[in-house]
Amino acid sequence: MCIMTEFFNVTSVQEALNLILQKLIPNNQTELVKTIDSLGRITQNKTYSLEDLPIFTRSSMDGYSVIAKDTYGASESIPAYLDIVSEIPMGNTQPTSITSGQASQVYTGGMIAKKSDAVILLEHTQIVSKNTIEVLRPVAPNENLIHIGEDVQKDDLILNSKHQIRPQDIGGLLSVGINKIEVKKLPRVSVISTGDELIPATNRPKQGQTRDINTHTINSLIKLAGGNPIQHKLIKDDFDSQLNISSKMLESTDILIFSAGSSVSSRDLTAKVINKLGKPGVIIHGIALKPGKPTIVGLVNDKPIFGLPGNPVSAITVFNLLVKPVIEVLSGNKKPKKPKILKAKLTQNIPSVSGREDYVQVKLFYKNSNLYAKPIFGKSNLVHTMVNADGNVRIELDQDGLYSDNIVNVETYDY
Amino acid sequence: MCIMTEFFNVTSVQEALNLILQKLIPNNQTELVKTIDSLGRITQNKTYSLEDLPIFTRSSMDGYSVIAKDTYGASESIPAYLDIVSEIPMGNTQPTSITSGQASQVYTGGMIAKKSDAVILLEHTQIVSKNTIEVLRPVAPNENLIHIGEDVQKDDLILNSKHQIRPQDIGGLLSVGINKIEVKKLPRVSVISTGDELIPATNRPKQGQTRDINTHTINSLIKLAGGNPIQHKLIKDDFDSQLNISSKMLESTDILIFSAGSSVSSRDLTAKVINKLGKPGVIIHGIALKPGKPTIVGLVNDKPIFGLPGNPVSAITVFNLLVKPVIEVLSGNKKPKKPKILKAKLTQNIPSVSGREDYVQVKLFYKNSNLYAKPIFGKSNLVHTMVNADGNVRIELDQDGLYSDNIVNVETYDY
Repeated sequence: MCIMTEFFNVTSVQEALNLILQKLIPNNQTELVKTIDSLGRITQNKTYSLEDLPIFTRSSMDGYSVIAKDTYGASESIPAYLDIVSEIPMGNTQPTSITSGQASQVYTGGMIAKKSDAVILLEHTQIVSKNTIEVLRPVAPNENLIHIGEDVQKDDLILNSKHQIRPQDIGGLLSVGINKIEVKKLPRVSVISTGDELIPATNRPKQGQTRDINTHTINSLIKLAGGNPIQHKLIKDDFDSQLNISSKMLESTDILIFSAGSSVSSRDLTAKVINKLGKPGVIIHGIALKPGKPTIVGLVNDKPIFGLPGNPVSAITVFNLLVKPVIEVLSGNKKPKKPKILKAKLTQNIPSVSGREDYVQVKLFYKNSNLYAKPIFGKSNLVHTMVNADGNVRIELDQDGLYSDNIVNVETYDY
Repeated sequence: MCIMTEFFNVTSVQEALNLILQKLIPNNQTELVKTIDSLGRITQNKTYSLEDLPIFTRSSMDGYSVIAKDTYGASESIPAYLDIVSEIPMGNTQPTSITSGQASQVYTGGMIAKKSDAVILLEHTQIVSKNTIEVLRPVAPNENLIHIGEDVQKDDLILNSKHQIRPQDIGGLLSVGINKIEVKKLPRVSVISTGDELIPATNRPKQGQTRDINTHTINSLIKLAGGNPIQHKLIKDDFDSQLNISSKMLESTDILIFSAGSSVSSRDLTAKVINKLGKPGVIIHGIALKPGKPTIVGLVNDKPIFGLPGNPVSAITVFNLLVKPVIEVLSGNKKPKKPKILKAKLTQNIPSVSGREDYVQVKLFYKNSNLYAKPIFGKSNLVHTMVNADGNVRIELDQDGLYSDNIVNVETYDY
């Protein structure tokens, strides 16, 4: 087995991830949001009902509210006769009473007459005259009623803690008077782009300058992972300004990402700045990963700090492997979205080297109803390698490569 | 085979969906959005590069830019000697020239010296004196360079039409000066809640009143489906006001949803209003579906109109089956998110009736590492049936039911 020496002193992806996750302090910061704005957020605590639902006994059908005993023995041949003494329209808040031999017309979801104990369905009656109906079937007490608290009772558990709020949960909370809910704050993530050659992405570069596009790619990845990209800044490769600005940003963020320039000197500067920011500083320098080897991971004041490589393909690969899981843990989401995996047949060999994980970009296509994955061997410093890719194929740490016609798992980039 | 008569005159879910989709006019409305705000949006047109990328020949490594010919034959035993005449720092826009026998120090992503045609890696050189290096290997012309347009060329296709924009696409667009992009407008969806018993969800109901929670559940479902919930109104069961308001809302919306009151009279009113709004009006009245039978589908001015049942479980079920696919088609999304399907063992029989589709809410749990699905037989008019459910199980049109210990597909409610 051949181990490349350049990967001797670096950490495997799994080791790196374990090390970071083990040092993470769970996020217990919460905020109160309106229930109607809480879709997708994670509850902090167990939530209990504030009220009985319904708060009044409801009819579950359109028909007549009656005293059940009055209908006993009723049939199509020997119907029971009842006097309609009132109609209780929807939204009526003061229903009338009935006595034996009487009925009130009622509607699905509406109140029933006082003293009545059941509802006979409209289709099980016949109108005889303006104020009289025939009842063609008996009803039992409580039939076609929804009782106070039958849906949910005051103090019943509505939602568990650490639950991601779904559309029906919003309805459920509102239904019992819970108009605000305490949810976990989204992890705040800040991005610092460094490099003397970089200009803001929407500016026009001169010769020798490069647009800072990684900041915006990374901000989008942060959003998809469930984080809140609160701030980003572009800084020259100057130790003092990087230290000053990152030190301030660290105070108000949960995760700090340096998107380093591509040169070695720029990356070395990132490591120096992280070490100066606080203890323990850099905890991982270099990952057994291609692309993405020159990754830096740090920890300062219990906050994770990442130094992502400047190459766009490397930056995205490392983000997905290391930063995304950290955002997910800090967000408290127990069921983060996983990428869709498709099985496809490789169109050609992919060489690799045992001792590192390789992530190779692939383009997917169908031919004779088989799904094929064609490797894109673009350099990792080409932006459009990743734009052209539909997903990636992983080559494990101990694999020497993959062969043409192998069926591989493609992790797709469908979001 | 037993067919319930109540489902004789109704449309199957599949027929209903086919009928609606066949009448849909594709959405060609677009808007120009900032590229940095375009995550997840669908491109209208093919997008071509405005520029070459890179716009200058870049070094792909840290090292020295040289004239390749000067290094031919160089080796560790017989190195070539070159004079370092300059350093070209990152961001430098006016590189110096070199002549034969000279080298300029260059950095990854930076410019190279004029007249140079290759870069020799730092680690393949040795510093002999302040201004002299030994070159220990030869380099070929163009080695370690990224040429103008090598990443992407002006007028190259960047993104296809009808493509959902991913994080790397945002980087790719920005990298070639595309700061705004034309995307499909999100389908606008408006919701009208009707019912004399309904009050705004955040108000406190009196006896006989019910909070209008469905509007907010439906708005959340609209967002998840990729629609834009632009407006919602709560209206009493009054024909004229429903007609006036819905007629105005229809002008500025792509899809109109009536969330009907629970009573038959409220639903009948919805149908009358839709028929009066325009031609053809109601095209489907009743679906062979439980829960969700009293569903209305209409079409006015080529715009789909849905009358969803007032029961919360029915409303969500019908939304997912009929409204969601319509929003997805109108949004132009070719790869809408599908719910996660889990295989689970049923804990008890679920009776059904052939001739209709049944959707039964289930709670999932693990026991001895097997996943079980326990049916929740709550009435569909109970809000918390759906809050307590983890997903649903479908019983096909021609099935009489499902049996305990059957392995079933559970469509989960993880969003």
